[in-house]
Amino acid sequence: VIEDAIRAGGGSVVDTTAQADMVVWNGGPESLVGLLHPGIRWVQLAAAGVEAWLQAGVVDDERTWMSGAKSYDEPVAEHTLSLILAVRRRLVECARVSAWDNTLYGRPLRGSVVLVVGAGGIGREVIKLLAPFGVITLAVTNSGGQVEFADRCYAAGALSELWGEADVVVLTAPVTPVTYRMINATSLAAMHDDVLIVNVARGTLIDTDALVDALRHDRIGGAALDVTDPSPLPPGHPLWSDPHVLITPHVANPGPGRQQRFAQRVTENVDRILRGADPLAIVDPVRGY
Amino acid sequence: VIEDAIRAGGGSVVDTTAQADMVVWNGGPESLVGLLHPGIRWVQLAAAGVEAWLQAGVVDDERTWMSGAKSYDEPVAEHTLSLILAVRRRLVECARVSAWDNTLYGRPLRGSVVLVVGAGGIGREVIKLLAPFGVITLAVTNSGGQVEFADRCYAAGALSELWGEADVVVLTAPVTPVTYRMINATSLAAMHDDVLIVNVARGTLIDTDALVDALRHDRIGGAALDVTDPSPLPPGHPLWSDPHVLITPHVANPGPGRQQRFAQRVTENVDRILRGADPLAIVDPVRGY
Repeated sequence: VIEDAIRAGGGSVVDTTAQADMVVWNGGPESLVGLLHPGIRWVQLAAAGVEAWLQAGVVDDERTWMSGAKSYDEPVAEHTLSLILAVRRRLVECARVSAWDNTLYGRPLRGSVVLVVGAGGIGREVIKLLAPFGVITLAVTNSGGQVEFADRCYAAGALSELWGEADVVVLTAPVTPVTYRMINATSLAAMHDDVLIVNVARGTLIDTDALVDALRHDRIGGAALDVTDPSPLPPGHPLWSDPHVLITPHVANPGPGRQQRFAQRVTENVDRILRGADPLAIVDPVRGY
Repeated sequence: VIEDAIRAGGGSVVDTTAQADMVVWNGGPESLVGLLHPGIRWVQLAAAGVEAWLQAGVVDDERTWMSGAKSYDEPVAEHTLSLILAVRRRLVECARVSAWDNTLYGRPLRGSVVLVVGAGGIGREVIKLLAPFGVITLAVTNSGGQVEFADRCYAAGALSELWGEADVVVLTAPVTPVTYRMINATSLAAMHDDVLIVNVARGTLIDTDALVDALRHDRIGGAALDVTDPSPLPPGHPLWSDPHVLITPHVANPGPGRQQRFAQRVTENVDRILRGADPLAIVDPVRGY
């Protein structure tokens, strides 16, 4: 599939990295290092979040690095909506019982304030999907610039003032030294005691022990996590059995369609490079994504 | 709350039915019969589906009967989206396990064909909520007339041709002699073997035994039911433990906000009647809702 995608973009597939000027890479950072040589001018990674490559020191200034960011926005945003609605409508509890209990009613989302932290590709798509649901969406980006369909837009510096306004906090931010464990005892203490926290980005955006503590003391309403820290979440971890927590095993961007979506990005970027245009999703090591 | 709603519409609340010309009724059909007298010209029922009143023979030609239809469209439609997404994204199975299993990925909804059977108030709101999800919506109504946001519109007579086109079948139709058990062995046999059936209307739209049989033989993909037949669904019923089935206990229109929504309808209809205008949601015994 990926070889076809390279050819569809006008590139040729070669047998050895010695002959290549571009690498398309769907593995981890360690095994990549040995393949790089000065002739490799472009590296296309499949992952949308590339913090592991940055932390490993693999991403260098010698060549252009590209992530898979924005290739997977639609399926991940759709999963995000499913997580928000499932926990708000208490479907987790409904799925776990085997008897009719009509006290198991949830709270409609309509009228709620949804804070989207990191309104990049996925966050923007989440805000678009939420548009007909009658919620108030607050979009946070680095710049604070306008985000389509968002009711209010803020720069990241405003976050400490925003935690207390949200009924739902959606994490769609990359992990950087600034965002690492942004959900911690301090930010959790600033939130409503019925807030729902949804993470479809990276587990390390949340201080898991602080989250467990807040849930245990009913200081927040619930959590829906497609990513966890540690990952995978070990058996016996208290999050597995919390009635207000839904864990999905990093499946927001499901396997079967994922390679197809990455293939489209490969074709697009090979074509752009051959045309002399800027490829999509160039990694900026200073920015951290 | 309801007394305030009557006054807000310009009406007065009286102590005995003998003094009343209108009854606002939140109970069942049996206890209502004895209260009616020739001076009662209007009866406002709280239920959106009034088949129980029609079957009991309570609804007569002596007065105008009004249902709660279209008062509850928004919360019920929101619950419908949560059910569709939960089963498609396999959240039922995720909620039931206590270990990380990354084979538990669902299928994105995007690109699916969603057949909405009975595109009245709730169905139209479902179609509106689905608009940004990139699905193809087929709306079925009695008339086959245009439905906003629907990709294609059909009259009820086309249904037998449509079952085989749907990836998701959403039931938002009233129960009438025509729609009773419309999901049965014949219609199930005409559907895709991965179709998802969602019922937020009335349990008797589905022949439950036929549904169980289709699920058991993997002839359909799953079901999400807020209403069941029998209701409540008894303990030990096979639907409780099916991994592809989510049961919610008739909570699409959750209790706490429901009275508020009905109160708004009461105010509106009292005002309309006093102004000499047609009240909303007049029951038509011939049509059956």
